Amino acid sequence: MEIKPYYRKLNYYETDQMQVVHHSNYPRIMEECRLDMMEQIGVSYDRLEELGIIIPVLEIHCYYRQSLKYNDEILVVPSLVKLTPVRFTVTYKFLDAKTGELKHTAESSHCFVNRDFKPMNLKKSFPEIYQAFETLKDET
Amino acid sequence: MEIKPYYRKLNYYETDQMQVVHHSNYPRIMEECRLDMMEQIGVSYDRLEELGIIIPVLEIHCYYRQSLKYNDEILVVPSLVKLTPVRFTVTYKFLDAKTGELKHTAESSHCFVNRDFKPMNLKKSFPEIYQAFETLKDET
Amino acid sequence: MEIKPYYRKLNYYETDQMQVVHHSNYPRIMEECRLDMMEQIGVSYDRLEELGIIIPVLEIHCYYRQSLKYNDEILVVPSLVKLTPVRFTVTYKFLDAKTGELKHTAESSHCFVNRDFKPMNLKKSFPEIYQAFETLKDET
Amino acid sequence: MEIKPYYRKLNYYETDQMQVVHHSNYPRIMEECRLDMMEQIGVSYDRLEELGIIIPVLEIHCYYRQSLKYNDEILVVPSLVKLTPVRFTVTYKFLDAKTGELKHTAESSHCFVNRDFKPMNLKKSFPEIYQAFETLKDET
Repeated sequence: MEIKPYYRKLNYYETDQMQVVHHSNYPRIMEECRLDMMEQIGVSYDRLEELGIIIPVLEIHCYYRQSLKYNDEILVVPSLVKLTPVRFTVTYKFLDAKTGELKHTAESSHCFVNRDFKPMNLKKSFPEIYQAFETLKDET
Repeated sequence: MEIKPYYRKLNYYETDQMQVVHHSNYPRIMEECRLDMMEQIGVSYDRLEELGIIIPVLEIHCYYRQSLKYNDEILVVPSLVKLTPVRFTVTYKFLDAKTGELKHTAESSHCFVNRDFKPMNLKKSFPEIYQAFETLKDET
Repeated sequence: MEIKPYYRKLNYYETDQMQVVHHSNYPRIMEECRLDMMEQIGVSYDRLEELGIIIPVLEIHCYYRQSLKYNDEILVVPSLVKLTPVRFTVTYKFLDAKTGELKHTAESSHCFVNRDFKPMNLKKSFPEIYQAFETLKDET
Repeated sequence: MEIKPYYRKLNYYETDQMQVVHHSNYPRIMEECRLDMMEQIGVSYDRLEELGIIIPVLEIHCYYRQSLKYNDEILVVPSLVKLTPVRFTVTYKFLDAKTGELKHTAESSHCFVNRDFKPMNLKKSFPEIYQAFETLKDET
């Protein structure tokens, strides 16, 4: 299936006195985009947590090319660039929603753990959910 | 016992493009101050949660008199102005740490609930913790 | 004109370890709703700041009736309940977007100031913008 | 001069429903630590902004090894690992303040720009401030 980019307007409270969106908000928007992507493949994160599948962040990498401002509208395009039974990596392109201009690129890596934060092999424990993730690998 | 005011420096990421600390950060500083006050009477909130005592917020009231800026230093003076076995109210004075000038006043109300968010009579369920709260009533 | 309620999904990063949306996020959602309301009457806040009209917060009052959770969808209904040439007050109803249930009520008061934070009489300085605000008074 | 590590207690509002500190708070703590380091060498960031020296973030890299929890106490050890007249890079070690255990490592890169966000050669424009940064390169 085709993944729709994540649309987002930047909020006033996300700016700082440099008159731009504070850089710590980008990982939050990446999370919004990533969970939206998962919802699009039928794997809503609140359902995962109910099943005991927790997905913490291992690494975050952000490359700020151009600043975002209050009321700017962006599209965030996610790609699942790596998937194994125990972890995955997503990249993000932040585009100006009006001009398509590239404002920011980013990457996040995650693993699957259970409620006690012990590593989980998703393919073995929840094969059908792992399969859903695999469709992302092909399509984005 | 005498409660020490809560010292705090304002962070850059707490500012917005109006060049002042965004108003949504004040409830966060109130929480820092309130939990610090509880720690001073030997009732650390992480211990309370372990015991199954949850303290949600019922109401918040904020009166912004003068803006705070990045790197400002403040002292927040808490007072337990009301305490019953099921709820309590704290008021807060935000003072400039250098001049003592009053910058902000606020109030928050809370109740005691168990892990299922059912109301709890703290005096009956945890009399010694209720007693600790009572010392605040007298002293602040 | 009729004001459309502000639609919002709650984000994962807005939760805390109490498993609910942290109370400090509500003033942020109130701001999103208020600025959206202003945009609906043709008074976008970024344009106001360009004109030198700054609108700080004077007071905030929040009444938390029921907790919000990650992925909950809400509608926030704003009402301009008071307007003078120098200040205004907005009330907010947070409704469950699916059931219409009332989850939270709130109120914020604001004044008009210039770039030096000096009080401004909006009716005198920018009569046509004041007029736009007046349509809110009648319609919400 | 010797740089003192940055001490920090983790706040309740920084947790999420995974019961740990949300990963988006780490870039904020990095900023607190970086600005504290600059203050220790007599280069307070609010003074820099007054002089028209703006220091935006170019890149952020975070490696989450172990989760932090509410009320945890940490020491963040910064190192200026790269400095040129137009940009610099800082690395951060997040240590458990009690055990010294390494919880997190991170890196941020920055450039110097003027108020119009045009690149600035700090060594040429403000040699004595550049010199202050150079002492960091030797000492941390």
